Amino acid sequence: MADSIKAKVEQQMEIIRRGVAEIVPEDELRQKIYESLKNSQPLRIKLGLDPTAPDIHLGHTVVLNKLRQFQDLGHEVHLIIGDFTGRIGDPSGKSETRKQLTEEQVKANAATYQEQIFKVLDPQKTVIHFNSEWLNKMNLVDVLNLAGKYTVARMLERDDFAKRYRDNLPIGIHEFMYPLMQGYDSVVLEADVELGGTDQKFNLLVGRQLQKEYGGKPQVALMMPILEGTDGVQKMSKSLGNYIGVHEDAHEMFGKTMSIPDELITRYFELVTQVPLDEIKDMQKAMEEGSLNPRDAKIRLAREIITMYHDAKAADEAEKRFKLVFSQGSIPEDIPEITEQQDQVWLPKFLQEHKLVSSTSEGRRMLQQEAVRVNGEKYGEENLIIQDGMVIQVGKRKFIRVRKS
Amino acid sequence: MADSIKAKVEQQMEIIRRGVAEIVPEDELRQKIYESLKNSQPLRIKLGLDPTAPDIHLGHTVVLNKLRQFQDLGHEVHLIIGDFTGRIGDPSGKSETRKQLTEEQVKANAATYQEQIFKVLDPQKTVIHFNSEWLNKMNLVDVLNLAGKYTVARMLERDDFAKRYRDNLPIGIHEFMYPLMQGYDSVVLEADVELGGTDQKFNLLVGRQLQKEYGGKPQVALMMPILEGTDGVQKMSKSLGNYIGVHEDAHEMFGKTMSIPDELITRYFELVTQVPLDEIKDMQKAMEEGSLNPRDAKIRLAREIITMYHDAKAADEAEKRFKLVFSQGSIPEDIPEITEQQDQVWLPKFLQEHKLVSSTSEGRRMLQQEAVRVNGEKYGEENLIIQDGMVIQVGKRKFIRVRKS
Repeated sequence: MADSIKAKVEQQMEIIRRGVAEIVPEDELRQKIYESLKNSQPLRIKLGLDPTAPDIHLGHTVVLNKLRQFQDLGHEVHLIIGDFTGRIGDPSGKSETRKQLTEEQVKANAATYQEQIFKVLDPQKTVIHFNSEWLNKMNLVDVLNLAGKYTVARMLERDDFAKRYRDNLPIGIHEFMYPLMQGYDSVVLEADVELGGTDQKFNLLVGRQLQKEYGGKPQVALMMPILEGTDGVQKMSKSLGNYIGVHEDAHEMFGKTMSIPDELITRYFELVTQVPLDEIKDMQKAMEEGSLNPRDAKIRLAREIITMYHDAKAADEAEKRFKLVFSQGSIPEDIPEITEQQDQVWLPKFLQEHKLVSSTSEGRRMLQQEAVRVNGEKYGEENLIIQDGMVIQVGKRKFIRVRKS
Repeated sequence: MADSIKAKVEQQMEIIRRGVAEIVPEDELRQKIYESLKNSQPLRIKLGLDPTAPDIHLGHTVVLNKLRQFQDLGHEVHLIIGDFTGRIGDPSGKSETRKQLTEEQVKANAATYQEQIFKVLDPQKTVIHFNSEWLNKMNLVDVLNLAGKYTVARMLERDDFAKRYRDNLPIGIHEFMYPLMQGYDSVVLEADVELGGTDQKFNLLVGRQLQKEYGGKPQVALMMPILEGTDGVQKMSKSLGNYIGVHEDAHEMFGKTMSIPDELITRYFELVTQVPLDEIKDMQKAMEEGSLNPRDAKIRLAREIITMYHDAKAADEAEKRFKLVFSQGSIPEDIPEITEQQDQVWLPKFLQEHKLVSSTSEGRRMLQQEAVRVNGEKYGEENLIIQDGMVIQVGKRKFIRVRKS
């Protein structure tokens, strides 16, 4: 009996270890799973969410996929929406990144989150909390109690604090409270495991420490790697433009996925899809042996991603369109139409107005780089005579058809 | 008109500068006094009190005397009893010095304070506040707001924090909150001036800074020197035993005052009495010229102190007794009597039981040092045959008469 539980523990551990960067401490996680199985009591898996940035991209889904794996193993996911901190912003008014949100914005962001998150998570095994529930109730005595459980020196060990202190850049004393508040969330929730990126290790361990100080069981910290963006170099991030958003349309997703470097293919499979590890290993082996073209592996990757965030039909269409454009160099059929009254337009502005480029200077650059085509032919002039039905293309994937009014 | 106000400002400044270690910044204090006179609006002078140590000695009265001078100039004194911090103690449980007090203890201590403090201050111009009034109302948002107004680096500049950080001794994050809370008291009170010892400079300037951050007028920090104890070397402190308590009896005060080193006489006059500066300067000059015996200056000092904390009659009696014992070597008349049943006693224990020494080992040492007299004669044996009416003396000022029962 105990032996069969132990075997099940190892099965769970194998799934949980997939793609993980670090588990601190792994032994305790094994023990927690053992007790969970023995007592038929699911573990409480925590993830904190920042309510200021509700646009989720594949970088975020690395932890979400791991949460989903925990759910599939029978555990319970607790999402903490940090509405308290969102509502207060940065009280020193010095941080641009921590803007103050209204209650309505927080609610709207939370709704957007849920919509996107439940494309990965099982809503039946997900509990959503707003940390204002308990943080709003804290008074000064509670705060001093909390702050008394951690030392200045240990807090200054956190990389970013250490660097700023060394470089004589100001650190507001309130900033020391944020990791403590995040850790306090774990105390209140009685989290068994907290997930985060490797950049969250310090904060996750603060939570672990605080749980001990408050006389509870310490959580296990499980860190996932930070996913590289489509450029294959930098961390995936909206501001760097190297992201694939879960709300993007299927064609965009397909094209972006096809643009990742070959060496990231298996990493993406491991971290952003639920394709079984064995299959991923087989694909990797096949690519190494030359029996699988990386392009075909990427097509499968793109289809997996689109199926998760749209559906199989959208994946079919995206694949079809992609092959049409890229493999045969022709123009797809279902492209958006716009109407133009003028006989002649200045292309940089025209392209920007129709969102084919983000600025007139980008428009100019695209023309110079011969990335603009009119009716399939490269076009380098800044001025264009409008003709009814003409197709304008920027880069590989952006098309419009112009109707003359 | 403006000129006559300016002359009055300078008169006030002269009185206020008496004995002061530092005023930051002095110009602003001058300006505040000018406006106070112009608008007939008293300044709000703040002093914070720690509710854990209600036994006041002359060291504490250095600031109290300064407050009294402000009152005599028409200003208003605001005493803040730090009951909030007293009630919570040290939430990390790691500090022995910050014990948690019950509400009753805080109240009892506050009552003791008032009784002692009003021997110096004018109750009509004194307002007493308990900082729990406003600190109890703070929630986490308020706390983050407060903490956001000060940086970690600046807080670590405080001498004791800097030293502990350097020496790898733990500093709880809650400890950073205490100077901020003390400063917040100034914000709430709209203090114009805050008084403290030179060791409080950092905290007083935090208050000044916070008032600015909260959009108010910054207070002036006025630091008084730390008074040396009767040993003339160390800071006056109860734990060092070199103190003169304001609640001590007149004989004890007289004797202790007579024991201070001559070079401290004028400093004590300046800092712990209200004797006019001119008179003090005259005495100093007379001592330097040899026309005033320091012993006589100290007798006046002792009389001034006793008159402040008891009355002139008590000063007369204490002087009379002191002169009797010390000048003529004889035994005073009104000494306490005790009753003894045994025929023979072991003196170290006997002296301790009757509080002539604090321990048997001190008793033994006194015997060895020939500091014990029986009926005026030096006595060095540890055993003593009891005789009815015998007078036992330890040191210069401690006597008992023994009655045989």
